[in-house]
Amino acid sequence: MNSPVATRVNHQVRLASRPVGLPTAANWQFTEEPVVEPGAGGVLVQTLALSLDPAMRGWMNEGRSYIPPVGLGEVMRAGGIGRVVASSHPEFAVGDIVSGGPGVQEYWRIEADAMRRGTIARIDLRLGSVPQWLNVLGMPGMTAYFGLMEVGQPQPGQTLVVSGAAGAVGQTVGQLARIKGCRAVGIAGGRAKCDFVQRELGFDACVDYKSPSFKDELKAACPDGVDIYFDNVGGEILDLLLTRINRRARIVICGAISQYNSTEGVQGPKNYLSLLVNRARMEGLVVFDYLDRYPQAVAELATYLKDGRMTSREDVVEGGIALFPQTLNKLFTGENFGKLVLKVAD
Amino acid sequence: MNSPVATRVNHQVRLASRPVGLPTAANWQFTEEPVVEPGAGGVLVQTLALSLDPAMRGWMNEGRSYIPPVGLGEVMRAGGIGRVVASSHPEFAVGDIVSGGPGVQEYWRIEADAMRRGTIARIDLRLGSVPQWLNVLGMPGMTAYFGLMEVGQPQPGQTLVVSGAAGAVGQTVGQLARIKGCRAVGIAGGRAKCDFVQRELGFDACVDYKSPSFKDELKAACPDGVDIYFDNVGGEILDLLLTRINRRARIVICGAISQYNSTEGVQGPKNYLSLLVNRARMEGLVVFDYLDRYPQAVAELATYLKDGRMTSREDVVEGGIALFPQTLNKLFTGENFGKLVLKVAD
Repeated sequence: MNSPVATRVNHQVRLASRPVGLPTAANWQFTEEPVVEPGAGGVLVQTLALSLDPAMRGWMNEGRSYIPPVGLGEVMRAGGIGRVVASSHPEFAVGDIVSGGPGVQEYWRIEADAMRRGTIARIDLRLGSVPQWLNVLGMPGMTAYFGLMEVGQPQPGQTLVVSGAAGAVGQTVGQLARIKGCRAVGIAGGRAKCDFVQRELGFDACVDYKSPSFKDELKAACPDGVDIYFDNVGGEILDLLLTRINRRARIVICGAISQYNSTEGVQGPKNYLSLLVNRARMEGLVVFDYLDRYPQAVAELATYLKDGRMTSREDVVEGGIALFPQTLNKLFTGENFGKLVLKVAD
Repeated sequence: MNSPVATRVNHQVRLASRPVGLPTAANWQFTEEPVVEPGAGGVLVQTLALSLDPAMRGWMNEGRSYIPPVGLGEVMRAGGIGRVVASSHPEFAVGDIVSGGPGVQEYWRIEADAMRRGTIARIDLRLGSVPQWLNVLGMPGMTAYFGLMEVGQPQPGQTLVVSGAAGAVGQTVGQLARIKGCRAVGIAGGRAKCDFVQRELGFDACVDYKSPSFKDELKAACPDGVDIYFDNVGGEILDLLLTRINRRARIVICGAISQYNSTEGVQGPKNYLSLLVNRARMEGLVVFDYLDRYPQAVAELATYLKDGRMTSREDVVEGGIALFPQTLNKLFTGENFGKLVLKVAD
């Protein structure tokens, strides 16, 4: 840790080939490089923890999206938290803890010409732990916040349903909806996750999509129908919710994890004409559009964490970037429980 | 015409059974009844013309929708224009021309207890002809107006695409979008319809979905992408447009005529995740929600008809209600050319 920078080695995970279906070991390449001091005005960040997110699966595909795909042979893109270990940039000092997008590697060198507003941002660990800064106070929390507040537009007394309720985005969506006066109903896989969502996170109800009576249980959990459906999963569950929405309902399209590894193409919501019957709306969201307003959202969410109105759960995997491939896949098999974080260094 | 009411016969078309796929003769029953004078406070309307609309196909199905289905054995629901031939209601006099929902029958008796605001409304034939009152100044025009203005939210310089461009709703959508400063691109079936849309209605372009190079032609017609897609058809065309939309695009879900007679269930838009990538919105509309604002929209559209900024085309079928079944089906085979109207009496 305190060895001179020049003697350290940077271990990396690169995208070797584009997956078909669930990523396999063959899609990844492990490389190592000597750590090099950045030039004048640059910063060197040591990765402490990486955020593992469903969106990563999309970044591995070729083709147009909201950001370019990761190129073959490139270090896999990833958000994370790190510690500044070398800096000649006026705004960052050695020891600063920062968030940014280090990628799946142990050291991230940012030269002066790549340093612009937002490349890295100093974070305050008094507001939350490193895992929380990748969860409620990080990209998932921002996605939950702006997706719910801007697209979902919660009104007191309305019913919100969120899928992936035990996951990173879902846990904040439901808790925030309750704070805003809504009934919050989660959908999650398995009894343990549902119990957590209902008891620990305080949702009004949580329904297990693996239950044989899932449909009936969902209906019972939403006696007044559904005003906001925050969709993280797509597929059958989106189609089911389309049959439960109220007039002028808002469906927030945040993700479609059930479809990301499909080799038969995406399943379109065949009940989409419910949008017509119910004068309802389905709208997509990309969190980066709200970059300017992150500080305000972080401040609000940190208050809730502090005063106990909000809690969070992270699934922190120890073992460094060597475990990246198998850890990522936990997202798609539903094995993770809470926001998935890969710890890289202390 | 001027025979006493009591000696007249009311010919009717009733729903005999619910269709599977395209309606057939077996789904309809022809009945006749003597015409009966309405009681005190009632009105008797002779049907002059009926509006034939894609939405009728939905009304023939069982199950929850924005209005209840037509019951088996009931006169088929239809909007239309008629002449008051008997009245003891203070607001309506014999000879008044009114719009309302007579159903597929020659005479419509409205008793006092069914007379409420909006059941029938006097219309001014100086603003438009009877067929135009079923088109631009009627339900299709209102659908176009509120769908475009409220859901589509046109901005000058943006590109609008509308499917079913030669149809009742489509023709007004495109012309109105141009008046509001948009580039208007139509989609229609066959060269004749496309020529009409471009030359007579003045759209900037119209693309033939039956052309083997449809995709390329659509792309060429929208060099700056698509900001508003007004969807009347659903299916493959909706999926294609999802690949062409710009950031913050609005997709107005007005109908899905390609799906109404499907016996294999509705095809969901498999490219719906384009809503996420583009932070775009897909939103449904039911025109009845804007009932209070019809007069304002009629006044605006009548101005455009009068000053020549807008034109309209109706496909008026003569021959009375006996021709209702085969005429309705023209909507689903694409044989109609312009707003489909069934003339019932002079």
